[in-house]
Amino acid sequence: MERNGHTLPNGNDGEPKGQTTWKQAQNGTGSSSSSKVATASDDEWTILERVVRVLAEEGYLGPTIDQKPVVEFEYPEDLKKLIHFPMDDPKPSSADTIERIVRQVLHYSVRTGHRNFHNQLFAGVDPYGLTGSWITEALNTSQYTFEVGPTFTLIEDAVIEKCLQLFGFGEGDGILCPGGSMSNMYAMVAARYRMVPNVKSTGVTNLPEPLVVFTSEDAHYSITKGVHWLGIGLDNLVKVKTDHRGRMIPQELEASIESVLASGRKPFFVNATAGTTVLGAFDDFQQLADICERYGLWLHIDACLGGTAILSQRHRHLLRGTNRAQSLAWNPHKTLGAPLQCSVFLVKERGLLHECNAAKADYLFQQDKFYDISYDTGDKSVQCGRKVDAFKFWLMYKARGQQGLEALVDNAFDCAGMLHAEVIRRDGFRLVLEEYQYTNISFWYVPSWLRVAKPEQETPEWWQRLYTVTADIKERMVKRGTVLVGYVPLLHKGIGNFFRMVVTCHPRPSYASMMFIIDEIERVGEELPRAV
Amino acid sequence: MERNGHTLPNGNDGEPKGQTTWKQAQNGTGSSSSSKVATASDDEWTILERVVRVLAEEGYLGPTIDQKPVVEFEYPEDLKKLIHFPMDDPKPSSADTIERIVRQVLHYSVRTGHRNFHNQLFAGVDPYGLTGSWITEALNTSQYTFEVGPTFTLIEDAVIEKCLQLFGFGEGDGILCPGGSMSNMYAMVAARYRMVPNVKSTGVTNLPEPLVVFTSEDAHYSITKGVHWLGIGLDNLVKVKTDHRGRMIPQELEASIESVLASGRKPFFVNATAGTTVLGAFDDFQQLADICERYGLWLHIDACLGGTAILSQRHRHLLRGTNRAQSLAWNPHKTLGAPLQCSVFLVKERGLLHECNAAKADYLFQQDKFYDISYDTGDKSVQCGRKVDAFKFWLMYKARGQQGLEALVDNAFDCAGMLHAEVIRRDGFRLVLEEYQYTNISFWYVPSWLRVAKPEQETPEWWQRLYTVTADIKERMVKRGTVLVGYVPLLHKGIGNFFRMVVTCHPRPSYASMMFIIDEIERVGEELPRAV
Repeated sequence: MERNGHTLPNGNDGEPKGQTTWKQAQNGTGSSSSSKVATASDDEWTILERVVRVLAEEGYLGPTIDQKPVVEFEYPEDLKKLIHFPMDDPKPSSADTIERIVRQVLHYSVRTGHRNFHNQLFAGVDPYGLTGSWITEALNTSQYTFEVGPTFTLIEDAVIEKCLQLFGFGEGDGILCPGGSMSNMYAMVAARYRMVPNVKSTGVTNLPEPLVVFTSEDAHYSITKGVHWLGIGLDNLVKVKTDHRGRMIPQELEASIESVLASGRKPFFVNATAGTTVLGAFDDFQQLADICERYGLWLHIDACLGGTAILSQRHRHLLRGTNRAQSLAWNPHKTLGAPLQCSVFLVKERGLLHECNAAKADYLFQQDKFYDISYDTGDKSVQCGRKVDAFKFWLMYKARGQQGLEALVDNAFDCAGMLHAEVIRRDGFRLVLEEYQYTNISFWYVPSWLRVAKPEQETPEWWQRLYTVTADIKERMVKRGTVLVGYVPLLHKGIGNFFRMVVTCHPRPSYASMMFIIDEIERVGEELPRAV
Repeated sequence: MERNGHTLPNGNDGEPKGQTTWKQAQNGTGSSSSSKVATASDDEWTILERVVRVLAEEGYLGPTIDQKPVVEFEYPEDLKKLIHFPMDDPKPSSADTIERIVRQVLHYSVRTGHRNFHNQLFAGVDPYGLTGSWITEALNTSQYTFEVGPTFTLIEDAVIEKCLQLFGFGEGDGILCPGGSMSNMYAMVAARYRMVPNVKSTGVTNLPEPLVVFTSEDAHYSITKGVHWLGIGLDNLVKVKTDHRGRMIPQELEASIESVLASGRKPFFVNATAGTTVLGAFDDFQQLADICERYGLWLHIDACLGGTAILSQRHRHLLRGTNRAQSLAWNPHKTLGAPLQCSVFLVKERGLLHECNAAKADYLFQQDKFYDISYDTGDKSVQCGRKVDAFKFWLMYKARGQQGLEALVDNAFDCAGMLHAEVIRRDGFRLVLEEYQYTNISFWYVPSWLRVAKPEQETPEWWQRLYTVTADIKERMVKRGTVLVGYVPLLHKGIGNFFRMVVTCHPRPSYASMMFIIDEIERVGEELPRAV
């Protein structure tokens, strides 16, 4: 198993040891008694085994979570009466009390691993991902020096290497960070540094021309937040119009750039989107790249949601042109099911991340270490301590292989397709958008009593009624605990509430699970009182 | 157990069920067989139970990790030969293969839970904290709306409430975020927003006077990184001189402010430190607050390291005056032993975080929800999806009570005191700083062959030799796998490498564990060849 003569201490034959307790396992014997006197410290650790058993009993460590409601909803003020949240007891609790508290928390938490949870861009976890995250938590280290994270440093390198290859980024670089909003900020900071070399020293206060960022009106709001944080200012953020499918209109981008130039400001950054939050739209990266090249702008692709399509030979065409971007963000913690948080930021220019972000703290990144300090990757980061997020995705990949991941992604797309077809087929359901690109399917349900014979009867009041009905169906489903599916408006397109189903890889969706959602929406919609 | 007639499904009597497997537990029976046909999905989940057993066998789930080396060091290029890091296999792996890979990763990872790990500001995890983090990972949700995190929303509120009370922040507000660097950026962003109300729209590009940040030369480098990211620019960061103990000199701050005012720039933010990274120094918050009040500046306290002293009645005097700051950052994931990441940011002015950071995304923060949307706290954050970090600390507190946490903190301080006394007592050891404030103890070991009779023999060459000896002792200890303790220089004070021991709460240190470190440093130091 090991080369170079290394052997693993306490190695076993690769088989789990059956019915030994953890403590027996820790003593390395598997026998039923231990001569070691239990210390206080020993005792404390027993809570972990106990709680893991509770998690299993409550269905959180397997597919049986589906036998419970997706949520046992309580209003905030009521929930405060059911669980004692304040931290006001100076004394320790018994293990029984802790178990009781844990059971309460599990009982009233949302079961995102339930097959009827489709409320967000993430849902259940990949079991291998969860395994990886439990290991990471138990090993508790930080991702900044090889010294304290030798394995995790090389694992993060492998993840970045793989992602660079998947998205056509060649010899680039990257970093795992705590989410897509951070990734998008990394992109703007890197672009600004490339565009204004002295910006690290001077800041943006004394620039002759304000820097301007472009994104689409359907893009994620993290660009807005980032523009604020980075001192660019929302006046210098241009939201480019999208077509009816939610894709940035290239001609509109070009017109916006010209207009900004005419106003004496400096365009520097275009955020394109692969998989918009609501409609799942993919911008046309080739066309946007042409424009960015013409004007010398940095092209960033926010593929936090849609990047997962890269794993599928059938669907990766959606990402054609990512190789022409200067940076890209992808969150395996969304539809792919890596546990939160797992977000990858990639940049085409190797060395830029370090050059841009380094602060050279000599207490951490000592220059006289006895190993090659190019493996101390922490100074690429804006963070100091940084949680290990790469390992869970690496283990998912090792366990499933690219073929296994591809099968999961294809299944999610297939199920989204079934759902889409069923919405078309079934009376009373109505698509918001005929076409779909990713696994977001958007629709309304029109209860039979609200259906009209002629289009002209769909007055503004009728639409308002439908928007209210949508929110009401959601409320009832939450309170029944049957289905959690999000509703959203698209106000800039003049559209009110509609259901946005996001089909994720985990828990593995099926034809039956899709039909259950549709059936339930129909059932609840028909139960609504006419006078909503 | 439950009020309002609620009962928990699958409740048990509060006792662990002994030798049932998780699958039996999931089926709710505890019996030895299940008629349910295993699905592919069932099979996948078995990896989790298997790997947890491996973690236990390898000592990661208990105090027996001390029986292993703190690290089995391999150079990066050698480690790449021992573990196959690349993600290049398209096919799935068997469970045996996964177990083998996991064992390899565990074998070559640094055992931060080992009693001889003192290399960083964190070390082992609190078992209750780890329990909390495993639950969080299994429940996989995001901290932005009550809808998908009802329990975790109220738990985060409780943690913030507790921290506000501990630090004298009254009716303030706060947020958990992915680390101290982020917390410090939150502070600067909030202060800037308060100082320049239009900054969200205008950015800092068109300000008549550049904004200036003050921090001490011993403060953490995250202030530098934040100043860069936020567009303020390093030219507008003033590093105020510290005294020999590493504390910001108030008179120097005042002089710096005057000098910045004279240069036509606008001071707005002072970062004070509670527990500096190297020397563990605490600034004098009362004096700094007086100055900030006089000049109308925002006082932020970076208590990421030293905030833990608030839990101790004996040591909280170090934090006197925190109630006068406008914001504060504390990382329970450092010496207190909450698993990475767990960082709390507090702000005195309630409502400011939301006002400052909100982007009002209507797809997530719908205004027509059926519950009180003030519980949707996500728009206070610069992140969108946000990992649940509050629960692990909440569970630690629930389990130990404040008394239990206090005992841990006091023990760490006591052990630091013992170490300090031993360094004074023992021949060849030498303190960098006579006084200490937090649990950082800084010293050199002078091997007997390097000792000199008279102070004048301690020439610059002699000191250089000692700095090299320090790094060499560390290298040898790493390669022996006995002790991991950091060495650091303090270049701005003209001091080269010395050992910085950080005494943490977990694994619980003792007189014996402190003595082992000292003994080992002495042993290795004496073994060094004279001609280093």
